[in-house]
Amino acid sequence: MANQNKIRYAVVGLGYIAQAAVLPAFFHARGNSHLAALVSDDPAKLRDLGKRYRVSKTYSYEQYEECLRSGEVDAVYIALPNHMHREYTERAARAGIHVLCEKPMAVTEEDRTAMIAAARQNRIKLMIAYRLHFDEANLKAIDTVQSGKIGDARVFNSTFTMQVKQGNIRLQRDKGGGTLYDIGVYCINAARYLFQAEPLEVVAVRANGREPRFAEVEEGISAILKFPDERLASFTCSFGSADVAAYEVVGTKGSLRLDPAYEYATQLKHRLKIAGKEKIKVFRKRDQFAPELVYFSDCVLHDREPEPSGEEGLADVRIIQALYRSAETRTPVTIEVQPRRKRPSREQEISRPAVSMPKLVNASGPSPD
Amino acid sequence: MANQNKIRYAVVGLGYIAQAAVLPAFFHARGNSHLAALVSDDPAKLRDLGKRYRVSKTYSYEQYEECLRSGEVDAVYIALPNHMHREYTERAARAGIHVLCEKPMAVTEEDRTAMIAAARQNRIKLMIAYRLHFDEANLKAIDTVQSGKIGDARVFNSTFTMQVKQGNIRLQRDKGGGTLYDIGVYCINAARYLFQAEPLEVVAVRANGREPRFAEVEEGISAILKFPDERLASFTCSFGSADVAAYEVVGTKGSLRLDPAYEYATQLKHRLKIAGKEKIKVFRKRDQFAPELVYFSDCVLHDREPEPSGEEGLADVRIIQALYRSAETRTPVTIEVQPRRKRPSREQEISRPAVSMPKLVNASGPSPD
Repeated sequence: MANQNKIRYAVVGLGYIAQAAVLPAFFHARGNSHLAALVSDDPAKLRDLGKRYRVSKTYSYEQYEECLRSGEVDAVYIALPNHMHREYTERAARAGIHVLCEKPMAVTEEDRTAMIAAARQNRIKLMIAYRLHFDEANLKAIDTVQSGKIGDARVFNSTFTMQVKQGNIRLQRDKGGGTLYDIGVYCINAARYLFQAEPLEVVAVRANGREPRFAEVEEGISAILKFPDERLASFTCSFGSADVAAYEVVGTKGSLRLDPAYEYATQLKHRLKIAGKEKIKVFRKRDQFAPELVYFSDCVLHDREPEPSGEEGLADVRIIQALYRSAETRTPVTIEVQPRRKRPSREQEISRPAVSMPKLVNASGPSPD
Repeated sequence: MANQNKIRYAVVGLGYIAQAAVLPAFFHARGNSHLAALVSDDPAKLRDLGKRYRVSKTYSYEQYEECLRSGEVDAVYIALPNHMHREYTERAARAGIHVLCEKPMAVTEEDRTAMIAAARQNRIKLMIAYRLHFDEANLKAIDTVQSGKIGDARVFNSTFTMQVKQGNIRLQRDKGGGTLYDIGVYCINAARYLFQAEPLEVVAVRANGREPRFAEVEEGISAILKFPDERLASFTCSFGSADVAAYEVVGTKGSLRLDPAYEYATQLKHRLKIAGKEKIKVFRKRDQFAPELVYFSDCVLHDREPEPSGEEGLADVRIIQALYRSAETRTPVTIEVQPRRKRPSREQEISRPAVSMPKLVNASGPSPD
């Protein structure tokens, strides 16, 4: 790879997020990233998307090994259902192929530590796809909080809700569904990067849906995370409500609200309020996926450990599981998360123009039309 | 009283809220309400405020009985510290004087039931001063939610934070201090009037302050309230953060955000989001206290039970105490609150022009300047 200046990717799993966001991202990541192969169990997807993106190397899941050993791929972007993350990461690692894996990292602690171990043993880079770690609006929020402009950050509160339609993978327990795995993870991650700390104890209350679509996973969850120095983070997420994706950090001297904060298909907006005066800043819609590719390729090319590493993914999923345990056992759950040495910061900002929504092949978004 | 068309009030307790809001409110409530007497333990307040508002009848706390029996007062507005609400309500009731009492109603269950019993036995009207029950922005929020515009309301989330300076009564435990009694009560009340229901179970996590001012009461609390039909309400309130006073209701089809929602010294703002389209409506700053007087005087004059009755006050304080118990015992606390027959609605809207902040006499606001 020494004489290479582009990392060649296979995108594994061609569901909604791969088609809506990952595949179109390669164009604006072309400086160091190349879409080299597609892996899917759907021949129509392979045929149509292969044609659209001029990718001649296409593989079924059964041919994954062949893809990994083809010599034409340096990295995989894993956009598979959550419960398949471990296997496809381990197999890539064993073949010496780097892994950029969608979040949440994996559903069980065993799976997650296995993924980290596999990456370490095989000396491959493993990154979890935290798109907001490269996003100007969120990195600037961290900056604002760190600058002391709003004083000491004491409170984080967030609402992240959407409608998920019957049959969607997010509603299937055995495929790693659930509100916390899919959207709660953003709230948890944001609280952690805004407070620059790890929670000590968590509490959650689950709302079971009344509709058949919520037979396997909860409709919503409200959560409270207690951080060091008596800081409080709380959030509510739901698969049964209209779109809201906002957070607020309140400090001793002011507050910063991002609404929306987590979206990738719209502009993001800051409202900074200090001493009664509000300043609004709009961050235009951008491609949040190309930056992940650019950053990860750079890590591979220059042998740098990605900041959103396996450990970062591990931290969030530990918190998620502690929250589910709290909802189950009806008690606060104490957790111990190793504080991160590195956290997302403005240095990681990468800006790429927005892409428009491509025509989907045998796939649809999570929400009803 | 049959041949009277104005209710004559004694304002009891001349601290910040009485001076900043209650006394100035009488001017715009003059159609049916008259400021007849002042009761305070501070002769300077009695002298200066008596002169300013042309009130010749002034009484010390020791002379409260005299005031009640003077024949020149029909009702008291109790703006005393929370722990004094019961005694001053009971004494008024025994004298046949109607009571408009600041919220929270009282700190103990015993006090609250005693207040309700005293009012009933002595056939006087008792109203708890829920100013938002007459406020257009909040009543319109109820209307919007009830109309089905945002579908079924599934999630309520609120942030209510402010800075309270050392020594303020809100930080004194024996005077009924604490975030839930002072500001959390608004979040609880809003969740109840927006969902038009009573919570079944509550969970709270307390953040103890690190500063000396938080020696007696918590700095902040995050709370989760589970409502019937698996609806979730959550909120965080704090005495150690900058001003935020907002809530959001998320329904199956849209969301409604009020920011600010609870303030009385600023305009209030609606953001109604349906199908990705946002509609903003600003409600200009108004006097929220005159409407309470107008409404209560009307209830007395026409022998009607006030909607924000003792039972309404009781409901909130029961929930507050369940939340504190949950924080203490580290378990969810089940509660049983009698569903209200009557809830605030647009019919109760009363609009009066804003007043400007008068010069304070030996009093100051809760926050540092």
